[in-house]
Amino acid sequence: MAVALLTDFGTRDYFVGVMKGVILSINPRAQIVDITHDIPPQDVLTGAFVLKAAYRWFPPRTVFVAVVDPGVGTERAPLIVKTRHYYFVGPDNGLLSPAAEEDGVEEVYHITTRLPETSRTFHGRDVFAPAAAYLSLGIEPRMLGVPATSWRRLELPKARLEGGVIHARVIYVDRFGNVYTSARDEVEKVASLGDVLCVETPRGAIKAKYVETYGKASPGDTVALINSEGYLELAVVMGSAAATHGLKPGDEVKIKKCDDLRTEEV
Amino acid sequence: MAVALLTDFGTRDYFVGVMKGVILSINPRAQIVDITHDIPPQDVLTGAFVLKAAYRWFPPRTVFVAVVDPGVGTERAPLIVKTRHYYFVGPDNGLLSPAAEEDGVEEVYHITTRLPETSRTFHGRDVFAPAAAYLSLGIEPRMLGVPATSWRRLELPKARLEGGVIHARVIYVDRFGNVYTSARDEVEKVASLGDVLCVETPRGAIKAKYVETYGKASPGDTVALINSEGYLELAVVMGSAAATHGLKPGDEVKIKKCDDLRTEEV
Amino acid sequence: MAVALLTDFGTRDYFVGVMKGVILSINPRAQIVDITHDIPPQDVLTGAFVLKAAYRWFPPRTVFVAVVDPGVGTERAPLIVKTRHYYFVGPDNGLLSPAAEEDGVEEVYHITTRLPETSRTFHGRDVFAPAAAYLSLGIEPRMLGVPATSWRRLELPKARLEGGVIHARVIYVDRFGNVYTSARDEVEKVASLGDVLCVETPRGAIKAKYVETYGKASPGDTVALINSEGYLELAVVMGSAAATHGLKPGDEVKIKKCDDLRTEEV
Repeated sequence: MAVALLTDFGTRDYFVGVMKGVILSINPRAQIVDITHDIPPQDVLTGAFVLKAAYRWFPPRTVFVAVVDPGVGTERAPLIVKTRHYYFVGPDNGLLSPAAEEDGVEEVYHITTRLPETSRTFHGRDVFAPAAAYLSLGIEPRMLGVPATSWRRLELPKARLEGGVIHARVIYVDRFGNVYTSARDEVEKVASLGDVLCVETPRGAIKAKYVETYGKASPGDTVALINSEGYLELAVVMGSAAATHGLKPGDEVKIKKCDDLRTEEV
Repeated sequence: MAVALLTDFGTRDYFVGVMKGVILSINPRAQIVDITHDIPPQDVLTGAFVLKAAYRWFPPRTVFVAVVDPGVGTERAPLIVKTRHYYFVGPDNGLLSPAAEEDGVEEVYHITTRLPETSRTFHGRDVFAPAAAYLSLGIEPRMLGVPATSWRRLELPKARLEGGVIHARVIYVDRFGNVYTSARDEVEKVASLGDVLCVETPRGAIKAKYVETYGKASPGDTVALINSEGYLELAVVMGSAAATHGLKPGDEVKIKKCDDLRTEEV
Repeated sequence: MAVALLTDFGTRDYFVGVMKGVILSINPRAQIVDITHDIPPQDVLTGAFVLKAAYRWFPPRTVFVAVVDPGVGTERAPLIVKTRHYYFVGPDNGLLSPAAEEDGVEEVYHITTRLPETSRTFHGRDVFAPAAAYLSLGIEPRMLGVPATSWRRLELPKARLEGGVIHARVIYVDRFGNVYTSARDEVEKVASLGDVLCVETPRGAIKAKYVETYGKASPGDTVALINSEGYLELAVVMGSAAATHGLKPGDEVKIKKCDDLRTEEV
């Protein structure tokens, strides 16, 4: 059974290696897969976004271990969330909720099982890794914890359409500098493929052709397209939209169709 | 069966995780191995070099998935290249060709199989990962695509020997700052171990002792040696030749034996 | 059987991929796990520290391959160290010794087996990877090398308590900027939880509350705590102690209880 890891631990320390060692000590046949360990430190929102983008491509019964936890060491309960197809293991800070709720939450547990030698500061090793490894062996969550009466949710930012203008936020910037906004199918209501979008940002105004794919534009052009995750993305062909336009997660953007402008006239 | 991945996706986003999820959804027993995901964005030549340096050390029948694709979203056909010992899966932009041609190309296919839910911008997930996973299960490439009548090749830079001078290029700089030139056995024709090489670069002239191994020189020395891949490499012992001498991929270098200089006199 | 890798090779080149290819060519069922490949180049001490922090969480009979080797290409012998529970494979430069000696050394061998095609500069591929793969198949070390009469040890820095002052060094800085000092249970002799520690560093004096966990302090506070590895760690809650206080590995620090100060008065 696959155990997929997502953390903000980075890959230069021993943290991830130790978690894998613990998992293999319990289930030597686990298929351990890294989603990423480079979530920005303590950035729960980005962690939740990446987990939600990734989880549904994994086989049913995959156990996801997600650890981005600014509050480690506090009284926060570690969770197992059993969903329609998967198990999610991680801190009770909202990190698991966008993915788990999309898949359909069935049961939520507070993990009570711990490694015998438990430190106060490394839950990934002492709590999350063993719970995930036991789940990957087919052991029921009720053997590992107690039902939770409530847990913390987190909602990813959504866009709002008002008078032909989409009020959105930058929710993610990927390795290529592509800028994901929170706008999704609102775009279809204000523009059609081939239109030019006018995007107001904290660092100035951008014009972006609304295209189907990168391939429809020339190097250096700023384009807007619905990306593989269904978000309206700003991209610079063969370049970085984030660097070119100074955009970063959290920025507010207002998106509308430029008045009567078509690609030909830009 | 092993599935080895090489991309320019980086490891901070969900891209690689999603590809692995798709592979495991089709072949839960796949041995997934990362070669690297840190090819410089859209640098096909470096990707081709690294793939060629790595592939032959893997077991026969390994499936290589290589994705470095500045033209994603264009009409470029996704390929399966069956070689004497391996399968190579990736875009038709030359990335696969230096490795595949060295191993001996047997058949080339355009992949027609796709995941049911296909986006226009993530071929790694929707086309390459599933094709690789099916191949790793032993499914024949003709079940996944149609024979290609032609495909794009890319040639790695070669050196040229003219009047005792090797005209070469920097083709790679590794993590330690070692500088790989395109010179190979031409060196034996102009110098012997112990000679001093004079290297003309865009940023000035370098003198480098031609040695057998790093261990034969002192910290801080610039040396030249035939490296584990068979290329003439410039290295600074316990330092970075790239930083010390300002060298980067693409730079032209002229290499010759320094006139009548021997190590003793430098 | 698990084969766990720790190197300073980074993940952007082909080095690690090639080692994995060699391992799978010998043992296609090996469970290959990355501890890290981002040990600072040629920093044997940090490599030894990370290996020691990680190894004991892996299942018995795991084979560790550790390669951080400033002297590659010299006459240094490659080693297999058989300990009570594990095998350690790597260069004879002290890298393996803190972990191996903690677990209990049973036998030490010089590896004589090599891949048929052997380069002078890539022992990871030609010597260490094959030896590890054979060990992971259950082959005895005496089939792979000859008993070593001696090998090089390396001792991690220790702290010294003198007149109520702990003389220690920074031995590690993790991805979060947490600063590990070499102080361990000496702390209990000079302070109790709730006390304020006065830490003299090369860049000035620090006051740090001695706490049980991060959760007991406010964002921005500098705290001192015994971390998951048993070291006295300086941490800035929701921040980086290394950046805030300009600390790096090797720095000398003097730690004592601040005179009659208690948390309440700071």
